[in-house]
Amino acid sequence: EMLRTAVCAVLLLGSLPSPAAASQGHVSVILLGATGDLARKYLWQGLFQLYRDHASGGHSFTFHGAALTAPERGQRLMFDVLKKLSCPPDEPPDRCAVLKDQFLRLSQYHQLNTAENYTALNTEIEMLLRQEGLKEAGRIFYFSVPPFAYTDIARHINSSCRPPPGAWLRVVLEKPFGHDLESARELAAELAGFFREEEMYRVDHYLGKQAVAHILPFRDQNRQFLDPIWNRHHVERVEIVLKETVDAKGRTGFYEQYGVIRDVLQNHLTEALLFLTMELPGNVSSAGEVLQRKLQGFQSLRGLAKGSAVLGQYAAYGGHVREELQQAQGYVSTTPTFAGVLIHSDSLRWEGVPFLLTSGKALDERVGYVRVLFKNRAYCPQSGTLRDAGSSQCKAKQIIFYIGHGALNTPAVLVSRNLFKPVMPASSWKEAAVQPELHVFGQPLSDYYVYSPVRERDAYSVLISNIYHGRKDFFITTENLLASWEFWTPLLDSISHQSPRLYPGGVENQHLLDFEMVGGELAFALAEPIELLQPKAPTPSDYKTIQAKYRQSPLVSAWAEELVSQLASDMERAASSAVARAGHFHLALSGGSSPVVLFQQLARHHYAFPWRYTHIWLVDERCVPLADPESNFFSLHNHLLQSVRVPYFNIHPMPVHLNQRLCVEEDRGTELYAKEIAALVANASFDLVLLGMGADGHTASLFPHSENGLEGAQTVVLTESPVKPHQRMSLSLPLINRARKVFVLVLGKGKHNITSLISRVGHEPRKWPISGVSPSSGRLVWYVDYEALLG
Amino acid sequence: EMLRTAVCAVLLLGSLPSPAAASQGHVSVILLGATGDLARKYLWQGLFQLYRDHASGGHSFTFHGAALTAPERGQRLMFDVLKKLSCPPDEPPDRCAVLKDQFLRLSQYHQLNTAENYTALNTEIEMLLRQEGLKEAGRIFYFSVPPFAYTDIARHINSSCRPPPGAWLRVVLEKPFGHDLESARELAAELAGFFREEEMYRVDHYLGKQAVAHILPFRDQNRQFLDPIWNRHHVERVEIVLKETVDAKGRTGFYEQYGVIRDVLQNHLTEALLFLTMELPGNVSSAGEVLQRKLQGFQSLRGLAKGSAVLGQYAAYGGHVREELQQAQGYVSTTPTFAGVLIHSDSLRWEGVPFLLTSGKALDERVGYVRVLFKNRAYCPQSGTLRDAGSSQCKAKQIIFYIGHGALNTPAVLVSRNLFKPVMPASSWKEAAVQPELHVFGQPLSDYYVYSPVRERDAYSVLISNIYHGRKDFFITTENLLASWEFWTPLLDSISHQSPRLYPGGVENQHLLDFEMVGGELAFALAEPIELLQPKAPTPSDYKTIQAKYRQSPLVSAWAEELVSQLASDMERAASSAVARAGHFHLALSGGSSPVVLFQQLARHHYAFPWRYTHIWLVDERCVPLADPESNFFSLHNHLLQSVRVPYFNIHPMPVHLNQRLCVEEDRGTELYAKEIAALVANASFDLVLLGMGADGHTASLFPHSENGLEGAQTVVLTESPVKPHQRMSLSLPLINRARKVFVLVLGKGKHNITSLISRVGHEPRKWPISGVSPSSGRLVWYVDYEALLG
Repeated sequence: EMLRTAVCAVLLLGSLPSPAAASQGHVSVILLGATGDLARKYLWQGLFQLYRDHASGGHSFTFHGAALTAPERGQRLMFDVLKKLSCPPDEPPDRCAVLKDQFLRLSQYHQLNTAENYTALNTEIEMLLRQEGLKEAGRIFYFSVPPFAYTDIARHINSSCRPPPGAWLRVVLEKPFGHDLESARELAAELAGFFREEEMYRVDHYLGKQAVAHILPFRDQNRQFLDPIWNRHHVERVEIVLKETVDAKGRTGFYEQYGVIRDVLQNHLTEALLFLTMELPGNVSSAGEVLQRKLQGFQSLRGLAKGSAVLGQYAAYGGHVREELQQAQGYVSTTPTFAGVLIHSDSLRWEGVPFLLTSGKALDERVGYVRVLFKNRAYCPQSGTLRDAGSSQCKAKQIIFYIGHGALNTPAVLVSRNLFKPVMPASSWKEAAVQPELHVFGQPLSDYYVYSPVRERDAYSVLISNIYHGRKDFFITTENLLASWEFWTPLLDSISHQSPRLYPGGVENQHLLDFEMVGGELAFALAEPIELLQPKAPTPSDYKTIQAKYRQSPLVSAWAEELVSQLASDMERAASSAVARAGHFHLALSGGSSPVVLFQQLARHHYAFPWRYTHIWLVDERCVPLADPESNFFSLHNHLLQSVRVPYFNIHPMPVHLNQRLCVEEDRGTELYAKEIAALVANASFDLVLLGMGADGHTASLFPHSENGLEGAQTVVLTESPVKPHQRMSLSLPLINRARKVFVLVLGKGKHNITSLISRVGHEPRKWPISGVSPSSGRLVWYVDYEALLG
Repeated sequence: EMLRTAVCAVLLLGSLPSPAAASQGHVSVILLGATGDLARKYLWQGLFQLYRDHASGGHSFTFHGAALTAPERGQRLMFDVLKKLSCPPDEPPDRCAVLKDQFLRLSQYHQLNTAENYTALNTEIEMLLRQEGLKEAGRIFYFSVPPFAYTDIARHINSSCRPPPGAWLRVVLEKPFGHDLESARELAAELAGFFREEEMYRVDHYLGKQAVAHILPFRDQNRQFLDPIWNRHHVERVEIVLKETVDAKGRTGFYEQYGVIRDVLQNHLTEALLFLTMELPGNVSSAGEVLQRKLQGFQSLRGLAKGSAVLGQYAAYGGHVREELQQAQGYVSTTPTFAGVLIHSDSLRWEGVPFLLTSGKALDERVGYVRVLFKNRAYCPQSGTLRDAGSSQCKAKQIIFYIGHGALNTPAVLVSRNLFKPVMPASSWKEAAVQPELHVFGQPLSDYYVYSPVRERDAYSVLISNIYHGRKDFFITTENLLASWEFWTPLLDSISHQSPRLYPGGVENQHLLDFEMVGGELAFALAEPIELLQPKAPTPSDYKTIQAKYRQSPLVSAWAEELVSQLASDMERAASSAVARAGHFHLALSGGSSPVVLFQQLARHHYAFPWRYTHIWLVDERCVPLADPESNFFSLHNHLLQSVRVPYFNIHPMPVHLNQRLCVEEDRGTELYAKEIAALVANASFDLVLLGMGADGHTASLFPHSENGLEGAQTVVLTESPVKPHQRMSLSLPLINRARKVFVLVLGKGKHNITSLISRVGHEPRKWPISGVSPSSGRLVWYVDYEALLG
């Protein structure tokens, strides 16, 4: 009651909204967690900036700090913060004092704890507006509170504090937004029970960093220069980096649960990545278009796997954790405090360009940047010294969005002078003063056009302004958030038990954290000097590939990953020798899930595979259209064919779809395929047939007790599967057994029982079709992983 | 007679072959042009080296200098040369003196002018052998004479100087070996009338340069390191460079006919290129295997076009030519004295890697090298200074075969220390002394492992030894020579009238000759400062693309090259907007020769074309199997589809080949295609149909007075062509006219008459099917080049 009176007094006495402002209505800003760290450091300052920017026009404002603290103490704490608010150097001190005074009068503290508190807040806002005859424009609720408090607050706001129809509600949420895809989905679903999508503003404060926020406008304003070069033909690599010198001391309670990837890469660096990779919308000021293109950008990212990352942990981290979290002396944390991640986009524009995201604590310097490095397309026929003079085309070409700190110690945009002179909006970016002695990324600063902000602005003040203007493209939508978690979660899962490399911290790290790309994966450049982490569970690479016998034929066994890589190498060898011998390689591939990893391995690591001379045949097919996701061919196409260069003429899908219908006997698809094989494959003897083994002992689409395909002269047959889709087309056992080589791939615990059984049975193809695989003059090799072999 | 006696005396008195040497037989070396420049400077010295290397074992020798000069004068001239022969520093002076004395005694001069001279030479050799009781091992005839003399000499040797059966004949030929493919073929055919292929040793003295000769052995001996990185994934670019400071003064008689490409690139630099790009044979010492792989390497090179090269001419060259060749003051030479050429190999290994070949006279330094530059695959999360210390993975990685001169002033092999320590044969290469102050290619010499030859050997002495040992892989076979001319001739033809850029020469060239790769072509980095060459004929780019009307529809006209590039851009725009609108782009393409350049343009310059969402349809097809070179689809596949990424499911060849037969009515291929169109293309309205126009007014495969396809409801029809193959399948006019856009491409003088005619006629599709093209609600655009339009 006392507080309300105070506010009314302010409104009556103090800086009343000007008539113009009033006419556009009133905005109430409610800052939840008004006395917390973030509020103290950035948010109040940002709100004061908002007020300064708009005090003389537009809406009128009130600012409501809220917390759990009792009114008097809370108010005192809050006003202690407000008293320290400052203006930028270019604001005249008189005006600053007046504005600050006005801002303080428009601000008040609320204890928000019980449902009644929220109802009271709502009533106060309504009364105030009524008394002043103001129309309500909207309310901003800024959640600067720990995530566990979200649900309660959201429920209260939704039930008690919604503005009347016609006025908007904006709730501003701070990370973390979940811990992985599942938790993020849950949290999103929960919030969706209280707020509409357009009401939620999830903050990633990197989107408020001036250099990051300028990536899209820069791409837009410099289209004429960038259009020809912003693609895989010209860009050599992109580095998105946030290096910190501080460690996690004092924050391990949070950090131990999250680690560097969740803390920095999943959000900040990913947002910068998308600004670079997304296709530019026609209108970069349209939040809708930007968000849509960004989502499309996510769809183009190639999935991450364990090998996509290198992980480190500064050596003192374990001690910090044990101390702060009171863990036993033997406790070992595997939380990474350093990560390098290699990301590829499969878009036509970026295919093959490496995007390296790196962040870490306890590194040698504090700096953040986004660096686009262009290929050297020039040759300069002059000796070294002359070549490097002037704006030679042979010098490195780069565009750098310098986020801050580091050598420059300011946000900046740098463009190599031998690229182009960029178009920059003069109102917000100015050419920076020359610092001839300074070197940035191996080149003197004078090699670049350098722009710095006309006025350096804190990220939160930028974001608060964007909330006020409803610029949703500066925030993380639910779709965007889930797309990002969908992208990162597989990597996070796969590395959850991986031991990071320990590093001493600071300049002593030397080359210990240098990493490199090897076959589409990342690895530290230096071998681990000593095993520092104990105890260490055995990892797959501690085991060697086993060579033995299975059913009288060679058996290769290893953990799945090594096994598949061995199989892919053996296939490449078979292909090369067939091409050397006969000029072509006839390869028949099975469907199913096991081959998918093999296909990916072949597509990404076997550039020397003679695809141009390879014919691709199907071992079996489901009777669905070829482009149906259920089709074996579709999966083969997706995971392999679209990444390699097999001539169209050499691709032989099974003709299951003839005359607009599927596997109808009289359409003679089996005969057609048999004839095609006879016409192209000498003696109908494939160079290599790749098979799998089903839990019921089936192979190809030859199931136990099948009427067709287990014997007889027919080489291609229609069969029935016990599982859907029932109708299948398959090569017959006799045809398979004509092959020069047959490799059988068996992966996973689910295959352990059948693997044991088949090891003991004889030639009984009617019971177990796989037992009938026995090339008459070819070589049979079993590739069975440890899980299938050992259970 | 006197001479013969002298020789006999030598044999009786002097350095007789040792019994061991004699037992392996005798070798006669006949040097034709014994007193010429090359002989004086290199060949006698090389023969003396051969003698020193083999005097104490193997064969016995005699050396016969020959020329047109009369005996006495010739002998005096020759012995003046021989007296100056020297040994390398490591040979003890006593032994050198003895060997030189022996060598002189074994050498004699012959006048070889008339047929009788040759017969006499032969008789002398035979007599000598008989007298000494020596078995003849072989004869080497070294042609160090101008090319016009080749035929006569070859005829005489073949008819009079062949050794007896069981002994070999080796004739050594010096370049030039022709002037282009045709002249090289003629010369080769002529020589083939006299010598068998295995008897001819064509010299390219670069194959005797120690660093070049070591490329293949290096690749072989370092397979373990190079296997993973010697490919497009790791190699960023390759530079093959021969820079000279001298100009062509005094040699313009030769130079004006040849120019830098024929003089240096077609032979020396191409050979180095092939050593880098060819696949390694199993046995690099097998001349046969090496030569075969080299030929395969030539097959993988992508054809050159005008845009593949930049050309220069040092400013004083014109004056030198006018003076030396007594040309009038107005005479303008377009002979290039500088060239940069961009070469691509389409092999799986090298696809996309630029190979830059550069050579020129009057440049700033004399140096030759082959430089393989690797991609930086590493990221080093340390600030600049630390990053560059030690053997950081972030430093440049290169392998350099340093041919000679330049900063190092010795042949050398350099490998960056952060790559690997190479295996080098200790007998011929040693680690070079450290020169810490020296920088090579932007890095201190200490960043490399540096090897130099144990003994520096002149190229000719290496080659003479290889002739003696029958190592044909160090020489240019006829196949190799013709493959090289086949590769270079189209470029030479296309630039024969191109004005080279003038450059002042020496260090003053500055950045004038810097060039860069732009869309698969080369261009000078700086705009031409002044037009120095006069007069200059107008070139295509002097004309602008014309926009006008033709048959009431928009007409775009330009020179063929610009027109095709405009059309490709317009197609990309149409594709992008269709994909943005509907999610896919249905494109129907015509066969024939005109579209081939368009396909190549699309494949190489339009990376942003949305191929993944494009459906490819055929406008017409010949009734041949799809993989027949006559097939329209085959051509489309070769020139476009194999270079882009259209999903298999989106490719729709016409079903001309059903049930193992071609275009049989009852197989209902036309219905099948019509159904496929109806199923996938909304309203059977293609987004874009690309047509051509025949000289008879046909379009698609709709010929004048065709019974099918000009009208009626059938959308896909079988037709008859007046030219073979007669049977065709085609989209019908009514179907074509349903398209949203129809582009008609007409190229070449051969189309001028029909272009004029069709501009005047009305809608008469039975007479001129093209006149029936008139999209009912779509847009028709004519792309007609100046030659077709203006004749």
